Amino acid sequence: MPVPGPGYSITVRLEAPPSASAAGDLTTAVGRVGGVLTAFDVVESHADAIVIDITVNVASADHADGITTELDSLPGVRVRKVSDRTFLMHLGGKLEVSPKVALRNRDDLSRAYTPGVARVCQAIAANPEDARRLTIKRNTVAVVTDGSAVLGLGNIGPAAALPVMEGKAALFKKFSGVDAWPVCLDTQDTEEIIRIVTALAPVYAGINLEDIAAPRCFEIERRLRDQLDIPVFHDDQHGTAIVVVAALRNALRVVNKPIEQVRIVVSGVGAAGSAIIRLLRRKSPADIVAVDIDGIVHADRPGLDDNLRWVAENTNGKQLSGSLHDALVGADVFIGVSAPNLFGAEQVATMADDPIVFALANPDPEIDPLEAQRHAAVVATGRSDYPNQINNVLAFPGVFRGLLDAHAHHIDDDMLLAAANAIADVVDDRLNASYIVPSVFDNAVAPAVAEAVKVAARKEDVVSTA
Amino acid sequence: MPVPGPGYSITVRLEAPPSASAAGDLTTAVGRVGGVLTAFDVVESHADAIVIDITVNVASADHADGITTELDSLPGVRVRKVSDRTFLMHLGGKLEVSPKVALRNRDDLSRAYTPGVARVCQAIAANPEDARRLTIKRNTVAVVTDGSAVLGLGNIGPAAALPVMEGKAALFKKFSGVDAWPVCLDTQDTEEIIRIVTALAPVYAGINLEDIAAPRCFEIERRLRDQLDIPVFHDDQHGTAIVVVAALRNALRVVNKPIEQVRIVVSGVGAAGSAIIRLLRRKSPADIVAVDIDGIVHADRPGLDDNLRWVAENTNGKQLSGSLHDALVGADVFIGVSAPNLFGAEQVATMADDPIVFALANPDPEIDPLEAQRHAAVVATGRSDYPNQINNVLAFPGVFRGLLDAHAHHIDDDMLLAAANAIADVVDDRLNASYIVPSVFDNAVAPAVAEAVKVAARKEDVVSTA
Repeated sequence: MPVPGPGYSITVRLEAPPSASAAGDLTTAVGRVGGVLTAFDVVESHADAIVIDITVNVASADHADGITTELDSLPGVRVRKVSDRTFLMHLGGKLEVSPKVALRNRDDLSRAYTPGVARVCQAIAANPEDARRLTIKRNTVAVVTDGSAVLGLGNIGPAAALPVMEGKAALFKKFSGVDAWPVCLDTQDTEEIIRIVTALAPVYAGINLEDIAAPRCFEIERRLRDQLDIPVFHDDQHGTAIVVVAALRNALRVVNKPIEQVRIVVSGVGAAGSAIIRLLRRKSPADIVAVDIDGIVHADRPGLDDNLRWVAENTNGKQLSGSLHDALVGADVFIGVSAPNLFGAEQVATMADDPIVFALANPDPEIDPLEAQRHAAVVATGRSDYPNQINNVLAFPGVFRGLLDAHAHHIDDDMLLAAANAIADVVDDRLNASYIVPSVFDNAVAPAVAEAVKVAARKEDVVSTA
Repeated sequence: MPVPGPGYSITVRLEAPPSASAAGDLTTAVGRVGGVLTAFDVVESHADAIVIDITVNVASADHADGITTELDSLPGVRVRKVSDRTFLMHLGGKLEVSPKVALRNRDDLSRAYTPGVARVCQAIAANPEDARRLTIKRNTVAVVTDGSAVLGLGNIGPAAALPVMEGKAALFKKFSGVDAWPVCLDTQDTEEIIRIVTALAPVYAGINLEDIAAPRCFEIERRLRDQLDIPVFHDDQHGTAIVVVAALRNALRVVNKPIEQVRIVVSGVGAAGSAIIRLLRRKSPADIVAVDIDGIVHADRPGLDDNLRWVAENTNGKQLSGSLHDALVGADVFIGVSAPNLFGAEQVATMADDPIVFALANPDPEIDPLEAQRHAAVVATGRSDYPNQINNVLAFPGVFRGLLDAHAHHIDDDMLLAAANAIADVVDDRLNASYIVPSVFDNAVAPAVAEAVKVAARKEDVVSTA
């Protein structure tokens, strides 16, 4: 059940009588029907009426209607207009493309454009690596989607995915100064996506794949990594895996368990779950047991696709079978990137001592975090209204900043692990069970991640060119 | 032979003796070898030496070397460093992508990104036309090239074409507030280009094709216009045609000839020439004679491709054959978009009274404009160092501004003619033989073009939906 939050906030403009009790009556009415009032602005004041903007966080469209009706029914109050602040913010889109150079006069024009620009073109034609110095390629990343798995909304297509890609690009600029551009493709054909991204590559120094459905996303990423000389990163996979590994490192410090001795259950084996498993294996946990909608993944389960086959062969040392609840018995860590409300406090009670629960399904987690806390030592979610939010924003801006600064031609697991360690290190001595990852607004995160990735990328370059 | 201009400007940092005559010696030396000194800055001053930055417009790399050598050879002078201002301006590229919305805190983030953005995505999924209201599509144009015909440089490929596309995008923003993004495709296959641009279209409200070689550009444009519900404009064709038609309307006013009575020679039948011919036909001149490297285009000439076949069938009423020089005899207007130095004053003398010469080949025109002036009543070029520069910057920013503001789904010749008339009208009563088109820095141009195109586009929409 959704709760009122700033992601859904309305502003109600209304006329009210100029009485001393008007403000109190209005705020009481909002509270009565469960709205969270965040601003109260008088915009006009007359002898016979005042005009007020009331801004309220709501839970849903029905809830917004209910609040409006409640206000309109107050004696002497008339609602003039209701605006949705999220939609207002999106009018005209969230990005703009601006010149970084002055174009004031003929001299500027003749350097930035013809005839001067011709010499810059010729320099790049003679030495293609100069494109990283003399063009936007230096600092530019494509945010590529086919609109097939957007947020929790599913296959809504490329046009409807654009607001998410714009938001992502805005975060890239805000958190690490990367110029990112949305590429929303009107095709969901694997070969065509690969071909198109390859053809677009001259403008970009990195590719961020986003919200592309599994298992197509694995093939697209693998093939693009083979074909392109710029790093290819699928944020739903690797961004999530980085932050989970960072959070887990700190959570294990809280409970004082070495990762080599812990058994981890991963629920959900799509893009995120598979990438988490792959990166976790680099940390050598005692065991990982993967679970999906059909139960525990093991080698004898019929109908495994390539991805699940790999998971079955590389996890579940004891080849357990059964349900998620079976898998949880005795486990030290639960990591869920799957579906809402899969278990309750009674299952957490069956886990090992001091269990760690990362219930990351959005917007509704695998277990209510308050339930989980009854037995778990550390709880994390994907939500912003609980402690320990596992948010990819902690990873991708710094990761690409580091890749671009290193002029990296590829990305590998060492760089992902370097990013995870950098995120975990930012927490440092502030560590406690409610603070295992830094805030997304902690300005130290992106530079630390960037530096770690840059160092790792340069090390790789030395190795690969040695 | 190139002349020094601001498109090639170097800054020489040097040490010189602190003598009273140092400045004079240095500036004299620059002038002696043909450099145009534009700035003289003392950056350090010591008892035994001064450090000076001398900024000089040069004609070529050899010329720059010569000037540096000349300065270095002066007594007591030592050149420390030579920097190229055009390259300095290009370091890191010329564009950036910035958020238009604030991302200061959690509330902002939850509206611009998750969870709030999900409702915006759902609104677009339910009503795709909302993408023009709630995303960057509203104001965004793709500048698409395959790098096959870049400036006068030819087929230099997509990476080397990027500085031009960045410059174009910068001009879009500067002159009409359009957000334009470079799409440099690593393919020169017609079908693949069509397929890719179609797949990219969800993000854009218009496509500006740029520097794609003829005849491929004709097919790509035609097919994209058929397939897409956003306007497709090939600037090398239509931008040039608009400005030529505008300039010709004003030039004919100068010589007081109605277009219905003039005979026009068009030299060059590539992208620009073909588009000029197509648009000129809408103005019903007495005749158009097209000429290419093989001479006058007529129906009986062997080896005509589709484009030349169309030209032969729609021009040259008397089915003349022969050379460019033959075509010029008795012609009222010459329009060249072809090659340097094709004729001289003696051929202009064979034209009709008060001939008009538009010699637009870049950087070197079909005839030296000073030669042309000996007999021509009006002369225009593509160069910024002569009067009457025919520059596409007069057209494309306003054209797309108008298309975007009209939410246009296509573009047609009526809109191109409306743009041409708007450009010509800006000149108004300032008209004379040296001022047939406005300056590219005339702020009145883009809004006038935008308004004219918007009105024409809305008229079309009414017609097509009636």
